[in-house]
Amino acid sequence: MRLLDQRRLPQEEVYLACSDYRDVAQAIRTMVVRGAPAIGITAAMGIALGARSIPATTFEEFYRAFEQICQEFASTRPTAVNLFWAITRMRNLVLAHRDTDLSLLKQRLVEEAQRILAEDIAINKQIGEHGKSLLADESTVLTHCNAGALATGGYGTALGVIRAAWEAGKKIMVLADETRPFLQGARLTAWELHALRIPVKVITDSMAGYFMRKKMVQAVLVGADRIAANGDVANKIGTYTLAVLAKEHDIPFYVAAPTSTIDLSISTGDDIPIEERNPQEVTHWGGQPIVPPGVEAANPAFDITPHSYIRAIITEKGILSPPLDENIARVMSDRKVLSAEMRP
Amino acid sequence: MRLLDQRRLPQEEVYLACSDYRDVAQAIRTMVVRGAPAIGITAAMGIALGARSIPATTFEEFYRAFEQICQEFASTRPTAVNLFWAITRMRNLVLAHRDTDLSLLKQRLVEEAQRILAEDIAINKQIGEHGKSLLADESTVLTHCNAGALATGGYGTALGVIRAAWEAGKKIMVLADETRPFLQGARLTAWELHALRIPVKVITDSMAGYFMRKKMVQAVLVGADRIAANGDVANKIGTYTLAVLAKEHDIPFYVAAPTSTIDLSISTGDDIPIEERNPQEVTHWGGQPIVPPGVEAANPAFDITPHSYIRAIITEKGILSPPLDENIARVMSDRKVLSAEMRP
Repeated sequence: MRLLDQRRLPQEEVYLACSDYRDVAQAIRTMVVRGAPAIGITAAMGIALGARSIPATTFEEFYRAFEQICQEFASTRPTAVNLFWAITRMRNLVLAHRDTDLSLLKQRLVEEAQRILAEDIAINKQIGEHGKSLLADESTVLTHCNAGALATGGYGTALGVIRAAWEAGKKIMVLADETRPFLQGARLTAWELHALRIPVKVITDSMAGYFMRKKMVQAVLVGADRIAANGDVANKIGTYTLAVLAKEHDIPFYVAAPTSTIDLSISTGDDIPIEERNPQEVTHWGGQPIVPPGVEAANPAFDITPHSYIRAIITEKGILSPPLDENIARVMSDRKVLSAEMRP
Repeated sequence: MRLLDQRRLPQEEVYLACSDYRDVAQAIRTMVVRGAPAIGITAAMGIALGARSIPATTFEEFYRAFEQICQEFASTRPTAVNLFWAITRMRNLVLAHRDTDLSLLKQRLVEEAQRILAEDIAINKQIGEHGKSLLADESTVLTHCNAGALATGGYGTALGVIRAAWEAGKKIMVLADETRPFLQGARLTAWELHALRIPVKVITDSMAGYFMRKKMVQAVLVGADRIAANGDVANKIGTYTLAVLAKEHDIPFYVAAPTSTIDLSISTGDDIPIEERNPQEVTHWGGQPIVPPGVEAANPAFDITPHSYIRAIITEKGILSPPLDENIARVMSDRKVLSAEMRP
């Protein structure tokens, strides 16, 4: 597996070659790859990679080793539910092939991972098609973190909507929050949009309110790492602040995500686990401390935006408007839901 | 003049020696010294330094050269009104001494600058005394940027209030926004509070909403760079976002500033000039780009918090509560106001 090392963008385009699934898990943990859908796809591929090397001769033996691989991936990042969704999908495939020849099963796992990737790209394009009507011509969209091609199999969720609107001829300008501490906005969103020739300007996270008050923002559009049954959204730290600001300025706040990001087993956002990452991501920069020695920092990687702040959730199945709980239930009912086994 | 180079804190304590007033002006421009009161004090001292070297023999000749020095300082930073207040105070001293011997006048200017410094420290302690009642025991205060000893002649405005409450035995814990792009919170506020042994934790600016929603913030307390007659406050970019978040969570939002920060010649915050600094402060870090080549960034250094968001302004003359316009007018009426000549 070759993984573009997103930590080194935009300065360098370096690919990490992984022949051991543990290296893939570590790449997710250290944010070589990040973004909820991309984490799910990478885990599926990592599981397929790991399964290929299981030296089992019986299904039971194979399944024990397979479960260990799944656990390794499940421990990488707690918030993005697409990870658990992908693990469950791979596990379900194995369980449905108890009597299949093991070498054929291993091949099926590779195909399933590739299918997840291909489906994700198609899903993102559908999200873009649905969502593009929400963005006005000649408008400025504020986004946070990176919900683009780099965060998905390709095309992007929030950036996919912007891209679809742009491809439909709408003149969109994007304000990209730099997104401390990891700078996904400054490094990745700016990189993607600039490559697509969509006008983008980077701002610090603290400037969003300033530009909203100046009426220079017509919509806020972000991705999601997990969506509870009631429509509460976990997304990159800082998202909730944008939602509050958007409400105060009467600017629509949209979330773009595949239905694989919806976790029906979680009733509200308060039950979504929030990953606490190493405070050094805040206190250090390029290995150098920016905070005096002995001073602590907090580093919650995500926050919860309550559903009441959300104008709509844009999915591949259409635009979900309030009441979000009802519309989420409706859209999820005609879909094979993996809720029970979702989290290992 | 010796100036602590705040750009290099907390890694290094380096002092810049200035024998030419132009070096002092440049130090203000490049943020060797920053913080509204500190800018005013430094400008007054720089003017006294420059005046000493004026080779004039008549008052008219002296005043022409003196005005040039004042203009040099007036051009350094547009938003902090304390700069113009200090310039006016120095100019008024000169105009009141038309018939004084020039060498004596030069000495008087040095004394006036030293008086401004000493007064500022006393004023900050008064602000602290007035404000400390507003902070509850066992509470967490969120602050932004640096409104401490480093931003003033000493003791600090917002941090002075925290310090006074701490010295009065209240257990205060501080959340310090790192304050992108210049990191005054991570570098300076954390440094000051840690030295005072007041518990401080650094967060990214994007985390404020998260901690407020978790009910982990009991008050927001910031400084100010200029306060309009109606109570609107210009302060470091990101302050307005905190005010909106505080309102949404019903957390009191306080501003601490000397009355020299109040500009009665400006009726509302929309008339306060906002400094746009070099976008490279956003796009680069330690000389290295963090944004892809060709991508622009915005860098407004301040924002306006409308008075309706402000629970109180803490000054050396007492706590001003809403209606802020009336209470500002009242407190300013028994004070020698420099409004007419305030800005050159």
